[in-house]
Amino acid sequence: MSNTKVLPLVEPDSDAVAPCCPPLTERPFTADEAETAARMFKALGDPVRLRLFSAVASHEGGEACVCDISDVGVSQPTVSHHLKKLKEAGLLTSERRGTWVYYRVEPSVLAAMGKLLTIAPAAA
Amino acid sequence: MSNTKVLPLVEPDSDAVAPCCPPLTERPFTADEAETAARMFKALGDPVRLRLFSAVASHEGGEACVCDISDVGVSQPTVSHHLKKLKEAGLLTSERRGTWVYYRVEPSVLAAMGKLLTIAPAAA
Repeated sequence: MSNTKVLPLVEPDSDAVAPCCPPLTERPFTADEAETAARMFKALGDPVRLRLFSAVASHEGGEACVCDISDVGVSQPTVSHHLKKLKEAGLLTSERRGTWVYYRVEPSVLAAMGKLLTIAPAAA
Repeated sequence: MSNTKVLPLVEPDSDAVAPCCPPLTERPFTADEAETAARMFKALGDPVRLRLFSAVASHEGGEACVCDISDVGVSQPTVSHHLKKLKEAGLLTSERRGTWVYYRVEPSVLAAMGKLLTIAPAAA
């Protein structure tokens, strides 16, 4: 699976970081921009989900299967549920290999979200 | 009001950016780190709130009153409600001047959130 195809924050077929939206400090977001960006922030707005995301993101090679990250104090079905939510938000991609589904953080999505939070020169 | 006092992401009495948490890619978040960071992401996880935050952040001087940012298609009480939520999450500070309450984005909080989303060298 191509990593770039499922990511709403980056343009298809572009390796460069192409965020949906300008930095939050640059100009007021339009309704469409806010919808797209809010979806990603919301996905990270749950402590368990954030821990799982961090566990995947910091795992060796930037990917992990459910078997690697089950130590956050919730059941494995709950882990799977949250990983699915992160995937739906475009923050993770997944690939089945044998028994396990492996989840991977797309660095370009992290970079794009980080860019939203940079300080525009005019507002600094 | 000192801007640094109400910000959970930065240490009191520190002008430097001192985020609560390492980059998400560095190591798995602890439960406490995830609680703190998720609160901020959640605050930005609503489209209307994100538009308001962007409107304040991009307004001249990095601050705005409700009177400046009422064009997001919701009532003024709703605007005030969302601004209060952003303030409770530590993303905005406020100050009353005469009739109006002025809201300001704390650049160090933006920077700290941006830092969460940077790619740690080991995971890149």
